[in-house]
Amino acid sequence: MWKKWLTKRSEDYSAWYNELVEKADLAQPSEVRGCMVIKPYGFAIWENIKNNLDQMFKNTWHSNAYFPLLIPKSYLSKEADHVEWFAKECAVVTHHRLMNNPDGTWVVVDPTAKLEEELIIRPTSETVIWRTYKDRIQSHRDLPLLINQWANVVRWEMRTRVFLRTAEFLRQEWHTAHATKEEAIDESKQMLEVYDDLMQNFLAIYGVRWHKSESERFAGADDTLTIEAMMQDGKALQSCTSHFLGQNFAKAFDVTFKNKENQDELVWATSWGMSTRIMGALIMSHSDDEWLVLPPAIAPLHVVIVPISKSEDDLNQITEYLVPLFEELESMSLDISSSFMDANIPVTYKIDDDDHKSPWWKFAEYEVKWVPLRIAVGLRDMESWVLEITRRDTWIKELIKMEDAWKHISWILSDMQTGLLEKSRSRTNENTISANSRDEFISWIDESKFVLAHRDGTEETEELIKQETKATIRCIPLDSQLEQGKCIKTWNPSERRVLFAKAY
Amino acid sequence: MWKKWLTKRSEDYSAWYNELVEKADLAQPSEVRGCMVIKPYGFAIWENIKNNLDQMFKNTWHSNAYFPLLIPKSYLSKEADHVEWFAKECAVVTHHRLMNNPDGTWVVVDPTAKLEEELIIRPTSETVIWRTYKDRIQSHRDLPLLINQWANVVRWEMRTRVFLRTAEFLRQEWHTAHATKEEAIDESKQMLEVYDDLMQNFLAIYGVRWHKSESERFAGADDTLTIEAMMQDGKALQSCTSHFLGQNFAKAFDVTFKNKENQDELVWATSWGMSTRIMGALIMSHSDDEWLVLPPAIAPLHVVIVPISKSEDDLNQITEYLVPLFEELESMSLDISSSFMDANIPVTYKIDDDDHKSPWWKFAEYEVKWVPLRIAVGLRDMESWVLEITRRDTWIKELIKMEDAWKHISWILSDMQTGLLEKSRSRTNENTISANSRDEFISWIDESKFVLAHRDGTEETEELIKQETKATIRCIPLDSQLEQGKCIKTWNPSERRVLFAKAY
Repeated sequence: MWKKWLTKRSEDYSAWYNELVEKADLAQPSEVRGCMVIKPYGFAIWENIKNNLDQMFKNTWHSNAYFPLLIPKSYLSKEADHVEWFAKECAVVTHHRLMNNPDGTWVVVDPTAKLEEELIIRPTSETVIWRTYKDRIQSHRDLPLLINQWANVVRWEMRTRVFLRTAEFLRQEWHTAHATKEEAIDESKQMLEVYDDLMQNFLAIYGVRWHKSESERFAGADDTLTIEAMMQDGKALQSCTSHFLGQNFAKAFDVTFKNKENQDELVWATSWGMSTRIMGALIMSHSDDEWLVLPPAIAPLHVVIVPISKSEDDLNQITEYLVPLFEELESMSLDISSSFMDANIPVTYKIDDDDHKSPWWKFAEYEVKWVPLRIAVGLRDMESWVLEITRRDTWIKELIKMEDAWKHISWILSDMQTGLLEKSRSRTNENTISANSRDEFISWIDESKFVLAHRDGTEETEELIKQETKATIRCIPLDSQLEQGKCIKTWNPSERRVLFAKAY
Repeated sequence: MWKKWLTKRSEDYSAWYNELVEKADLAQPSEVRGCMVIKPYGFAIWENIKNNLDQMFKNTWHSNAYFPLLIPKSYLSKEADHVEWFAKECAVVTHHRLMNNPDGTWVVVDPTAKLEEELIIRPTSETVIWRTYKDRIQSHRDLPLLINQWANVVRWEMRTRVFLRTAEFLRQEWHTAHATKEEAIDESKQMLEVYDDLMQNFLAIYGVRWHKSESERFAGADDTLTIEAMMQDGKALQSCTSHFLGQNFAKAFDVTFKNKENQDELVWATSWGMSTRIMGALIMSHSDDEWLVLPPAIAPLHVVIVPISKSEDDLNQITEYLVPLFEELESMSLDISSSFMDANIPVTYKIDDDDHKSPWWKFAEYEVKWVPLRIAVGLRDMESWVLEITRRDTWIKELIKMEDAWKHISWILSDMQTGLLEKSRSRTNENTISANSRDEFISWIDESKFVLAHRDGTEETEELIKQETKATIRCIPLDSQLEQGKCIKTWNPSERRVLFAKAY
């Protein structure tokens, strides 16, 4: 029997992840430093994530647009924190032409084609977008401006890993402009809810959310909200961020509007993004030592049917037997109700009647690519009017009466969707623990837990803790209560616990 | 009454286009040289085009994937014609970091962060994709490989115009690999049919199609197919291309497969693309001196309803009166049957009851953004149980009985869709003419006709004709018959007529 084995998660979680991404045909590193190739099966999953998120954006009155890939160096320099952060790791375009090497051997950069001002490939688009907003926003009637773009960005990361951290990645980035501070803050909070909705109801990933600490904020933001999801190895993965940018970019680009009293005011801003990094979260949340496990809501294919036949005549009989099932599958959908979208996801299926491959080869093939449900049918099943249905999450295999098949399939898909979320939530809750001393803290972090602990709020202490334990403050959780305590490092007073963890 | 007038097409076609693109809120040039900002309304149209085309690709068994933005200089050099064409106009990344200027004034390129090998921002992706195909293709079982990507590309064009020719543009590019020459040629032909299907049935643009002449072929192609559409000023716009690449890229990247006899063979290839340039074709095909005209199949909004009310009480009465219409609109769709897709496009509508704007302001606003149908309702209309429906293509305004409204709306949308295509087709046919002498040729080209003429087939003659008249060979039309004749320039023998025109 054909099967490509994976390293076990317990042996080497990192090797398991890398092997799974490559063997399940999701993506691969390319020869271009730090850039990845997203393969068709991986891209189909990304498209499902993207389409659902995009619909949620449209349902909350946001519009898509497109801004230039290249940013003049001088734009990047306008916001001080922003340039500090991004200048260290950016791809710089300096020339606009190649030429034949005078010695005839190769092409080289044409020195006469030097740009007057260098261009940066966007690491993020705040600057180029706020330059445009300056022309676009005149009056309070032009606000709010709620614009998103789906685009590629480049950050010259030193250590890269497919999906988790790549030099080029795909993402959406919203950039909204508002007349008041309150409205901008509400927007940044609402959009975190949208992300949470997508993650829980579609990706089946539970995450701990709310404010970042000051030192972990986005460059140029007054506040950053995040959702931190626990992977199976206990590490946190920052799944998305939503930033309240205050008036920082409005100041940098001089964007004002006339208010109702005809006075000039600076505009308030938010920005937020989710990227192909979420593919890493998806893979590491649900998959197991066997292969990839995907929640049905974003699986490109739901059901695969494998006829077990020895002859063409057998195959024809089985196919005919299956006609009523096909008809039912055609009209089935997985229905998901969430706060920002009601989705009826058509159930997709495939019959694999390629007689060059054995049924066992096919079983293994579909385990790799992961299809939530596998249906096997042989001649004996036909006689007793049944189907053999195997679900991927639990490996439970059952003989189901033909007339009950559609009900059963529908139930499994929906049960699997909620089951995977429940598993993600329990994992997080069971592995989140309060530490009340430095020793406790160190031992829980060593065991890769999410640790709730007091800290004195200074960047220095945060840095010391990071150096000692590799743990960082992931967020100040939404349900974190005011509570007097002492910093686990300095013993200075603290007002509430924050969430520490090692992170991707 | 508020209205922004446009320059008339007859006065200055080019100014008319530029003004329309900007005033109808489709796109604008950015400060970044040659790059555009696609605004939300323009992007919504592009999304509709993209989604329909993408569905047609999926219906013909193609998959989406994603390949790196950055291409090592050495990849580009592997295919000789290819590097010759693209090296002259490309954005070159040479460094990966900025630093503070030692004098403290600014950020500058960090000279220590020079890349070992320069990277080119993809002008097209054949090279980086064929490098990947080398690893992916081993056996005849791996073929055909039918992969598309939606992505941005950059070509350092000297003269740029929004949508028509920009340094950065958005597009799809397919790259397919096949075991036999015949299959690859069939693929390149089939995909041209797909484009034609999209253009005729969705964009309502008629085009003349088939082979490019040798000198107009894509760099690295053995054959290029095209669709050339006539704009209202008589110039041709190349709307898409489909290339048969022979084994050129397989040779350059050494991509072979084991055939059924277990022998190594080079792979056959095609590539093809349609870009945001098609937005230019769309605008220039249908719009008039008043404003933008869009075919309903890709219009983001179909119907706008403007209540004519003087008080809130009036407005409430009118809104109540309209409830049955809303219900009907909710369930209406524009149904389009084409060879590669059957689409049921939901009819979208909006009621504009913002009482800060006058009805006349709103009428003008919706003319700008162009909505196919405008419905006006006042108290008097209510009394006689009618609606005033105005269609944008013909400006015909009719009072329609409430109970007939949905039938009428449905009919207008479908009539407008076919009417616009018919107009595009007649314009092309009426302005396509055969020239049998050099003088005839020059005078027809001067009058901006599509001219069918004999030419001797040499690149020199083509170049001479271009220098003299600005006309180029747009294509060798599909229905071009073998016919003995003499070249209009050199009087040398010719075997068939080709299509000459001035072009965008």
